[in-house]
Amino acid sequence: MQFAGSHILSVHQFERADVERIFSVADDMLPYAQRSRVTKVLDGAILGSMFFEPSTRTRVSFGSAFNMLGGEVRETTGFENSAIAKGESLYDTARVLSGYSDVIVMRHPTPGSVSEFAAASRVPVINGGDGSNEHPSQALLDLYTIKSELAARGRGIDQLRIAMVGDLRHGRTVHSLCKLLCLFNDLQVVLVSPEELSMPAEIVEELRTQGHAVLESDVLEESIAHVDIVYSTRIQEERFASQEEADLYRGRFRLNQSVYTSHCEPNTVIMHPLPRDSRDNARELDDDLNDNPNLAIFRQTDNGVLVRMALFVLILDVADQVDQHARDVNWYTQRRF
Amino acid sequence: MQFAGSHILSVHQFERADVERIFSVADDMLPYAQRSRVTKVLDGAILGSMFFEPSTRTRVSFGSAFNMLGGEVRETTGFENSAIAKGESLYDTARVLSGYSDVIVMRHPTPGSVSEFAAASRVPVINGGDGSNEHPSQALLDLYTIKSELAARGRGIDQLRIAMVGDLRHGRTVHSLCKLLCLFNDLQVVLVSPEELSMPAEIVEELRTQGHAVLESDVLEESIAHVDIVYSTRIQEERFASQEEADLYRGRFRLNQSVYTSHCEPNTVIMHPLPRDSRDNARELDDDLNDNPNLAIFRQTDNGVLVRMALFVLILDVADQVDQHARDVNWYTQRRF
Amino acid sequence: MQFAGSHILSVHQFERADVERIFSVADDMLPYAQRSRVTKVLDGAILGSMFFEPSTRTRVSFGSAFNMLGGEVRETTGFENSAIAKGESLYDTARVLSGYSDVIVMRHPTPGSVSEFAAASRVPVINGGDGSNEHPSQALLDLYTIKSELAARGRGIDQLRIAMVGDLRHGRTVHSLCKLLCLFNDLQVVLVSPEELSMPAEIVEELRTQGHAVLESDVLEESIAHVDIVYSTRIQEERFASQEEADLYRGRFRLNQSVYTSHCEPNTVIMHPLPRDSRDNARELDDDLNDNPNLAIFRQTDNGVLVRMALFVLILDVADQVDQHARDVNWYTQRRF
Repeated sequence: MQFAGSHILSVHQFERADVERIFSVADDMLPYAQRSRVTKVLDGAILGSMFFEPSTRTRVSFGSAFNMLGGEVRETTGFENSAIAKGESLYDTARVLSGYSDVIVMRHPTPGSVSEFAAASRVPVINGGDGSNEHPSQALLDLYTIKSELAARGRGIDQLRIAMVGDLRHGRTVHSLCKLLCLFNDLQVVLVSPEELSMPAEIVEELRTQGHAVLESDVLEESIAHVDIVYSTRIQEERFASQEEADLYRGRFRLNQSVYTSHCEPNTVIMHPLPRDSRDNARELDDDLNDNPNLAIFRQTDNGVLVRMALFVLILDVADQVDQHARDVNWYTQRRF
Repeated sequence: MQFAGSHILSVHQFERADVERIFSVADDMLPYAQRSRVTKVLDGAILGSMFFEPSTRTRVSFGSAFNMLGGEVRETTGFENSAIAKGESLYDTARVLSGYSDVIVMRHPTPGSVSEFAAASRVPVINGGDGSNEHPSQALLDLYTIKSELAARGRGIDQLRIAMVGDLRHGRTVHSLCKLLCLFNDLQVVLVSPEELSMPAEIVEELRTQGHAVLESDVLEESIAHVDIVYSTRIQEERFASQEEADLYRGRFRLNQSVYTSHCEPNTVIMHPLPRDSRDNARELDDDLNDNPNLAIFRQTDNGVLVRMALFVLILDVADQVDQHARDVNWYTQRRF
Repeated sequence: MQFAGSHILSVHQFERADVERIFSVADDMLPYAQRSRVTKVLDGAILGSMFFEPSTRTRVSFGSAFNMLGGEVRETTGFENSAIAKGESLYDTARVLSGYSDVIVMRHPTPGSVSEFAAASRVPVINGGDGSNEHPSQALLDLYTIKSELAARGRGIDQLRIAMVGDLRHGRTVHSLCKLLCLFNDLQVVLVSPEELSMPAEIVEELRTQGHAVLESDVLEESIAHVDIVYSTRIQEERFASQEEADLYRGRFRLNQSVYTSHCEPNTVIMHPLPRDSRDNARELDDDLNDNPNLAIFRQTDNGVLVRMALFVLILDVADQVDQHARDVNWYTQRRF
């Protein structure tokens, strides 16, 4: 695809080469995200960060990524601040707000709303999550993490063996990730969930059509025995009719160090889109894994910054200028972990 | 007036020459707002954006305008975050907050509050709307739009023929606009509203005293037949005692392409302070006008950035330095519309 | 202590030399805070401003201090935007958010939470207030103000005579200030409060152990007669079981110009952590003192910017680079007061 000036609305818009291009640029962002170098390539540019639904990590991750490229961020959060409540159409909102910035990241609770907004926007729009529909930058950072973790083990994404565990029905991230995985070859995908929370049939079908081996199970231990990646997810209680119904499933699949040691191959990578539910009756990924070097969940969120920087750089067409506008960092940057 | 260091609290503080000065500087801001040039003239300056009442577009417009001049923005939104709830006086709030920035934009639901705040502020304050009272930057951007649209038709503001339509009683923007229009000569002003929502008598009187011809009507079609500008407004339902009462008026005056074609002169400019109410039972300005090149409503909001940049530049006394601190933009800036 | 890379969590971590170091750097920040000079020493650095509890002045003061050093600020305010509501541990929140910035300021309603967060953060954390526990930058700015005001009178902090007045039980600021005062010598501390709202016994004990003279009283007039500083505080009504209970104490101690003239030595400095409660039934510090040159309450909040700049500069280890990255301000900077 042509990145310059494009919207990023759905994982479906990417070919394999596009994903590889994004990842290659993301790799180049590492010294800036790790704070050894500062670049001002987007000095003077403005990101409109339009979050019509609460979010901390996605919002701050996008904002910091833009700041790390030298740009400014103008934000809005929540609906109460919005003309939409006075009957304004998304078309009008988009026409107006797109006059205030060079690129927009938007989150909105209604599926399809970000695409509708993008159609009227005069500047490129990145979908930061439209309800249960799409969240492409999350899928990209997940896949980028898989790529990075496997690369450290001398492997590529083709022939990947991955188990996805938990609430596969409501989990937007696993849906999008599966769609991206369809761009690669010969995968083994184990889907572990209570039957009521299983992966939508059309996604399973899409994986199989692409030639991947898909196994469905509701037993954790056997399912994670022969995989490269365990991708755990939270039971999304807020999507259930009642807390009681959600509680039927919370805590069903618990990966902890003892389960890991007994059942997983050495060096199996553990991922999670976060937040993980650390309350006693959930704990899908136990805190006792925190010292396990294969726990990649925080590298995963760090990778979010790299991937989002890459998207900005590609959309605003400055990939080949980043290093020109760079210098070494002059303040304290040592990290504690 | 002397702009450097001044508060901008009311349209009443301007002479015609002041308005023309603001517009001249606003013209100069165009390459920066259109993103062909970047200036850092306010690099290091801080705008305190103090919105004690919700707002997206005004808040982001001011913030982006300041960013486009190279400055930083610190924001607060809503009351819950405020010491005012603990019994702090506006005097104290102003003394404290004005120590944190170089200029302040403030919105507050109470008429007169921004002036009270400004009296205690150590830095210049711009009124971003104080309840039903004043919103001077909106009036300026409206008049600037009138000037620009007429200039493209080879005309000036003097001898302007304008129809204002809708909720003229509650519409702060039309009140302020009328006051600014009093600075010009020989206007014809047609005021179209339900009788219960008519323009306050003192404003009509002010226009007439200034020598302008004022006609009042409650019929849309005949009123827009011989004007240069139709300025449509939303029924401000939130100002009515009940939704039922507001609904008596919503949808009363509907301008759409067919009405426009049948009744307006060619090239009649359509304006609206936005948001327009696009719900079926309102639609004071129909979506089918969106492709009409005379629909100026989005040029109007774009002009808001120019006018706000001009106010900052004048208040902070850097009008003659903007270009010195400028360079060409190095990222993708093509607009879709 | 070693400042570079350190967390700032509690006043207890400071030795006297540390406090003096912070104050010396704060002095150097004056031209930048007063806007005669601009520095870009932290150009490209990012502050994560994580306020899980409402705050305007502390939040904006930290943010502006960071902007005045050339850095960028990413913010979150309130809990509704937080993954914590979905069961995320503070450990996870810290690991994630600390990947987005170079230093974090955090406020949280739960005592101890900021320290818990800091233990998992990869970047330095400043405690911006953790419930009733600590708010070290407030204590530092109070002591810095005492130092500055006394210096103007040819005095140092040793041998200081200070009266603290009001709600000494709930007032986090007076608790922390007392702890800092323990680093100095031969003080006379008069504690004026209703008996029910008296200073916690362990703090009184700590002062006495350090060799300071402590007097407790519930009469205002006699207590402020022979002191250098009167430090007034608001009755923290939100900490009481009911408004009725709080109202038993609001308005009990009222310092106004007439009381000041009758009882205080000339040039006695008046301080207050703000907000002061200016409603008629409170007025612990009357508005009629606003023209009294010894009213230091707004110099106090201004000093907050200096002290916060100093903390950033020390933690990020750029104290000796600030002036190298500086230039004169090019915009209007005259202050009204």
